[in-house]
Amino acid sequence: MHLSDLTHPNQLHALNLSQLRSLARQIRDKHLQTAANSPVGCHLGPGLGVVELTLALYKTLDLDRDKVIWDVGHQAYAHKMLTGRYANFHTLRQKGGIAGYLKRSESRFDHFGAGHASTSISAALGMAIARDRRGDNFKVVAIIGDGALTGGMAYEAINHAGHLPKTNLMVILNDNGMSISPNVGAIPRYLNRLRLSPPVQFLADSLEEQLKNLPLLGSSLSPEIDRMKETMKLVTAVQNNKTGIIFEELGFTYVGPVDGHNLAELLDAFELAHGIPGPVLVHVVTVKGKGYAPAEAEQVGYHAQSRFDLATGKPYPSTKPKPPSYSKVFGHALCKLAEQDPRIIGITAAMDTGTGLTKLKEKLPDQFVDVGIAEQHAVTLAAGMACEGLRPVVAIYSTFLQRAYDQIIHDVCIQKLPVFFCLDRAGVVGADGPTHQGMYDIAYLRCIPGMVVMAPKDEAELQRMLVTGVNYTAGPIAMRYPRGSGVGVPLAEEGWEPLPIGKAEVLRSGGEVLILAYGSMVHPSLQAAEILKEHGISATVVNARFAKPLDTELILPLAEQSRLVVTVEEGCLMGGFGSAVGEALIDADLRVPLLRLGVPDQWVEHATPEEALAELGLNSAGIAERIRDKFQARFPAGSLGEVPLVG
Amino acid sequence: MHLSDLTHPNQLHALNLSQLRSLARQIRDKHLQTAANSPVGCHLGPGLGVVELTLALYKTLDLDRDKVIWDVGHQAYAHKMLTGRYANFHTLRQKGGIAGYLKRSESRFDHFGAGHASTSISAALGMAIARDRRGDNFKVVAIIGDGALTGGMAYEAINHAGHLPKTNLMVILNDNGMSISPNVGAIPRYLNRLRLSPPVQFLADSLEEQLKNLPLLGSSLSPEIDRMKETMKLVTAVQNNKTGIIFEELGFTYVGPVDGHNLAELLDAFELAHGIPGPVLVHVVTVKGKGYAPAEAEQVGYHAQSRFDLATGKPYPSTKPKPPSYSKVFGHALCKLAEQDPRIIGITAAMDTGTGLTKLKEKLPDQFVDVGIAEQHAVTLAAGMACEGLRPVVAIYSTFLQRAYDQIIHDVCIQKLPVFFCLDRAGVVGADGPTHQGMYDIAYLRCIPGMVVMAPKDEAELQRMLVTGVNYTAGPIAMRYPRGSGVGVPLAEEGWEPLPIGKAEVLRSGGEVLILAYGSMVHPSLQAAEILKEHGISATVVNARFAKPLDTELILPLAEQSRLVVTVEEGCLMGGFGSAVGEALIDADLRVPLLRLGVPDQWVEHATPEEALAELGLNSAGIAERIRDKFQARFPAGSLGEVPLVG
Repeated sequence: MHLSDLTHPNQLHALNLSQLRSLARQIRDKHLQTAANSPVGCHLGPGLGVVELTLALYKTLDLDRDKVIWDVGHQAYAHKMLTGRYANFHTLRQKGGIAGYLKRSESRFDHFGAGHASTSISAALGMAIARDRRGDNFKVVAIIGDGALTGGMAYEAINHAGHLPKTNLMVILNDNGMSISPNVGAIPRYLNRLRLSPPVQFLADSLEEQLKNLPLLGSSLSPEIDRMKETMKLVTAVQNNKTGIIFEELGFTYVGPVDGHNLAELLDAFELAHGIPGPVLVHVVTVKGKGYAPAEAEQVGYHAQSRFDLATGKPYPSTKPKPPSYSKVFGHALCKLAEQDPRIIGITAAMDTGTGLTKLKEKLPDQFVDVGIAEQHAVTLAAGMACEGLRPVVAIYSTFLQRAYDQIIHDVCIQKLPVFFCLDRAGVVGADGPTHQGMYDIAYLRCIPGMVVMAPKDEAELQRMLVTGVNYTAGPIAMRYPRGSGVGVPLAEEGWEPLPIGKAEVLRSGGEVLILAYGSMVHPSLQAAEILKEHGISATVVNARFAKPLDTELILPLAEQSRLVVTVEEGCLMGGFGSAVGEALIDADLRVPLLRLGVPDQWVEHATPEEALAELGLNSAGIAERIRDKFQARFPAGSLGEVPLVG
Repeated sequence: MHLSDLTHPNQLHALNLSQLRSLARQIRDKHLQTAANSPVGCHLGPGLGVVELTLALYKTLDLDRDKVIWDVGHQAYAHKMLTGRYANFHTLRQKGGIAGYLKRSESRFDHFGAGHASTSISAALGMAIARDRRGDNFKVVAIIGDGALTGGMAYEAINHAGHLPKTNLMVILNDNGMSISPNVGAIPRYLNRLRLSPPVQFLADSLEEQLKNLPLLGSSLSPEIDRMKETMKLVTAVQNNKTGIIFEELGFTYVGPVDGHNLAELLDAFELAHGIPGPVLVHVVTVKGKGYAPAEAEQVGYHAQSRFDLATGKPYPSTKPKPPSYSKVFGHALCKLAEQDPRIIGITAAMDTGTGLTKLKEKLPDQFVDVGIAEQHAVTLAAGMACEGLRPVVAIYSTFLQRAYDQIIHDVCIQKLPVFFCLDRAGVVGADGPTHQGMYDIAYLRCIPGMVVMAPKDEAELQRMLVTGVNYTAGPIAMRYPRGSGVGVPLAEEGWEPLPIGKAEVLRSGGEVLILAYGSMVHPSLQAAEILKEHGISATVVNARFAKPLDTELILPLAEQSRLVVTVEEGCLMGGFGSAVGEALIDADLRVPLLRLGVPDQWVEHATPEEALAELGLNSAGIAERIRDKFQARFPAGSLGEVPLVG
């Protein structure tokens, strides 16, 4: 059978092991072809690791009724191919194409979207409770990685599910020993011990004993037990066995460890688990990158990839060299500063590669902490360190810092502790789509008393803001910067000068329009000013630097002299930087028209950052056009216009 | 020794058991006296439960060097009395008096403030890592309740600490089987099993064996072992013992269970634990309300109390009857609606009494879910339920919902799921102080695409908004309402009419000043309008109802006809309701002056809600005064004023 002939996942029911193995090969081929040719990149290692898991699980389910909830979703590519998206799979993560994560609106088989880790058990339990309330009996299966299991909310869900012995729920632990990087923490170490112990081979008799001991399963179910007697190779350690004791103590029946690339064993284990009432955890051991030697050998590098030579696994050399990414400049500069100041500690939540902290980790391991996928703990740990005089630098993507919002307010800001938050991926993130867009940080940080919120106009200013942040001891401070390449400005190797807190910078003056640009929008705004000049409109451009405290000393007099004020930001308009400027104009009774450019009240779908910014009107052409339209509507050619009013 | 003679906690070192017992009695007396006479109420049960724990621990520590991190902090009253705050203890939780939680600015012995649960291990670990980095060797002790242990971030911290065998850290599990209500979940059930098993009594020989097995402790330490041999009554189960296996598997040495009211056993256990390298967990079993019979008998009711007869424990009858609280009206109405619609599920994170859900829990237990102190899981569980057609109503205080910010965005809003968030304690919370103020919800919810944010003007409108919310299926919706008594309006028992989404209501019209009041500020604004009238200023008053979507159709034309627009809200000014109105005026080029009244960019300290609101200028007199000042500054008497300009 060819994958393209599979129109419904329930067709898997009729397939035998060798047919399933053939499908597994086809799925890997398609995945690898897509990745190797993808202009936008896609995840690789995670998906390759769960091909057999997906096939075996789906063979044991009725997917018209049963529901599978994938955690994160970047590993659900086999799922996508098996649920009607094989033909379009090559469009993965491209504008208008298949999304890189699960999405309820994309398929009726995507029961719960994700992108952030550790959510699947909570969502699945909610569905299971709803199912039982209406007397239905379909199966609900949550799949969660061992990395995601370091996130506190997974534990909150386990604590709840383990307390509901009558609620059938299967959790599959997809254990590959990795998040993006190797996992850290006591739970991964514990799983490692479980994983390394040889799977227990029960004989039928002993299995029968085991099954009799199960809650709610009694002798009345002997036909079922007879059937199971025949599966002599069952790889499981149910009850009384020391393996999996933590899950057992927490109310789950533990099944495993199971070889995640052995279809027969997987099928046996899933069938067994389906028959066990209450919460069950099936521990499946997988290999990240399975089936593609380069990805198996280098699991961190092949977590995600774009355009590479399938034969060698080597990425194609870039046609035009790009400036270094903000993350790289950040990681490099932080490492430099940390060398000079032993109080500096870089903290990551399982994202050392993404945030650029790998360099610090390698060079100064004592000044690097990886807490696992645990943003809440990362922030309060930093607060504790700050109490003792360290200078913690918490490097977390804008979207993931949402996980630690209360800790920022309650543990850091109320106590005015000098924790430095470095928010990578602030603004448009490209192919990752809505779950990863870093749109809300300006709004959600700005409203907290005492917080400083800054954004550099380019990678050189990032260096200066970095040294500003680590030297700032008056309280919490945050810096946001975008995904991807810097602007390409020259970079000093050291001697970066700190910036005065709350001070903006005039980059271009004398205009009738005042453009207040924030962070990544400074350079496009400068270009927009050039375009406007060609249309006879002169613009002053200010690099605002700080959304909070806002440099009202500089901004208000300039605004007073302008016919139109424009704010430009790569973030949500509601409550964001433009809203802050609006508040300042209003509070000063300064009634000059204000045009706020940014991300309107909508989700931004996956596309390249350039495509997304163009669609949002946040490139130079878009900014210029919006300003020109507003200006011309307000001051029609020939009219003298209104004189700005000062209240 | 009398408590008042104790000037430094290290004086405890010199005291014997009977002297410590005398202090324990004095602490309980002072605590009970303070509670029984407190005009603002204070916590009772939690503090009474840890008197011996605190005394024994502090006797084993050098508090000039060692650091104790209390979780939540509402149980740290003995700590306060022992660290210089005995004389002023009667001012507890009153304006200008001792805070109800720990506070770094209040005492050098308060090493980390709290108010929310589950943070102490993270903060303590941060301090321990900082200590080790600078080569210091003081002790760091985190104290956490079994309730707080259901919070995911505690587990994130345990996962991290358990991975650092060289980092000395003591965690004391204060296990009283309760949060505010009895705990739910698999972890509490597991602890219950541990607790109910009789404490293991080791003989000296067996103890020696145990100690030899400890990591890093070898035969070279035999003098220490000899000393310990003498403590024949050691109540502990170290290693190899099945008790505490979860903590052992997670890298902690488990000591316990220990009787939390037996000073001698506590001292032995703490001394033993101080000698164990790496992370250690001491499991102390305490009784909430210990030493005061009414509080032991009714642990939920006596979690906190104000003004009661010490002899009987009965609260004094209220001198003047108050209207029912918003929480009570909410709980009552939700129960009514749930009776009619079996799809409605009320969800609480260990706060059924505070949120008013107790009634639902008792009457319709199948439509009530308590997830423990686990706000993140609560929200994503609700998302899963919403996928399956249930109508989840998540009742969480404004301040605690900060814990689930990412789940609101990522699991609910992106997927446009109809989850109904009911935010109690929105605005000023009174004696609980900064950690509990519900100031940020309008700002942090408003910036999320698709979110509806509403606030009722009184308890009758709360009923209407409740029925609005449970009937709203287009996506997420939130309602915020204040702590304490309603306004006292008549309440219909049923038949509440839903409100149109995004529609405001004009309560008083024809004024030159337009007051847009939100939620709890509507009634004070109406009163302010009366005061203004006496000063010759006429005011229109609008009950805005929705901060999002804002009723611009109603607001903008009214604003255009006004000389001054005023927004009034019980929430932060940065990004809040007034900011939303500002955005609307700006986007419409409507340049009428806008005065935004609300909570400025500062923390609001503990005081009664009335005191706090008066200080913030958010009572009728304050609102009227601010409006009059602004109006008169802008339109001096006799002047015609400016004609509002339309852009």
